[in-house]
Parts: sequence; structure tokens; C-alpha cells
Amino acid sequence: MILEAAVLQVREGTEAAFEEAMVKAAPVIAGSLGYIAHELQRCVETKGRYLLLVRWETLEAHTVGFRQSAAFVEWRTLIGPFFDAAPMVEHYEGALRWPRS
Amino acid sequence: MILEAAVLQVREGTEAAFEEAMVKAAPVIAGSLGYIAHELQRCVETKGRYLLLVRWETLEAHTVGFRQSAAFVEWRTLIGPFFDAAPMVEHYEGALRWPRS
Repeated sequence: MILEAAVLQVREGTEAAFEEAMVKAAPVIAGSLGYIAHELQRCVETKGRYLLLVRWETLEAHTVGFRQSAAFVEWRTLIGPFFDAAPMVEHYEGALRWPRS
Repeated sequence: MILEAAVLQVREGTEAAFEEAMVKAAPVIAGSLGYIAHELQRCVETKGRYLLLVRWETLEAHTVGFRQSAAFVEWRTLIGPFFDAAPMVEHYEGALRWPRS
């Protein structure tokens, strides 16, 4: 499993509209092959800053399957207009999960 | 629920030892009041970079309860020597979780 971690900074005053757009956009990313789950987290310390965490079955499910799809165009059309800067995207692989299950 | 997100950069060549130390340190943080769960994620793009995600019941469970405890001293004694820079720590609150459950 791969974790995509994207730091998003949205334009001042558009936070509520951005969060609504993310609800609309959720089924768009969720329908992509190899998608597992995602969550949007709102920063406590910095207004307009969000952490988007997406779980993918493989790295390519995100970088190729989703990013090169028509769904990605739709996703970006819905949420891209809110960005104040280019998202900072990294991928991670699980090293430890606690409690163990 | 609060998500603590910490970006950790460990010294070159110490990755395996750091991951072992994180296994030893897991029960130390897990015993703290208000702790829910945590995961350590290894960056695919940048060697030695990790994302530590800790779920807390409240912000204060981390910033006061854990950070001002003897357990925090033990935690930092176990993992602090591996850090190549001060951890970058932020807190987040959930805005969206998908699939909804």
C-alpha cells in the first residue's frame, strides 16, 4: 500500500467552498483503479492549509492510473481553482502501524 | 480527533536502526492518555525522510499530556539521536473521510 501525502494551500476566505468541492470531488478519485481511501485534514496552526492523505494499492495507481485519466482532469477542475500554490505531493510506504492489527 | 503530522529526516545510513527504535518506542507513546493510534511512513522520493502520523483525542493530549510527560523524555531518548534536523510538527483536524463509514 502507498500513502500519497499532499500539502494544499487554498486562497484566503475560500476554505468552506474548498471543503464543499472536496466532497463533490471525492467520488471522482474514489472510482479510480487501485484507490483505497482518502482523508482531508485541516491544519490547526495555518489557515487555508490542508493535508490530503490518499491510500493507493500501488504507486502507479496514483502516478499513472489516476493522473493520466479523464477523472484527474475532472478532479483538478473541481478543486484546482482554490489552490494558492502548487500542491506539494510525496509518496510514502508503511514502515510501522500501531496498535498492530 | 486530532492528527499530528511530523516530518522526520534521519541521518544517512541510520534508516534501519531508526525503524527498529520506532518499534521499541511505540509502546511509550501508545501508553499516553488520549493516544489513539500512529503510523510511520517511509518516503519513496527522499531517502531518510519519514512521515509520522499520530491520532490523538485532543490537541492537548499531545501538546501538554504527552510532551510534558516522562514518557516524552523516554521517546525522545530512543528516537532523537537519529534526527538530522528538528522534526516539523503540525496538527490537523478531520475535514473529510472517504469512504464514509
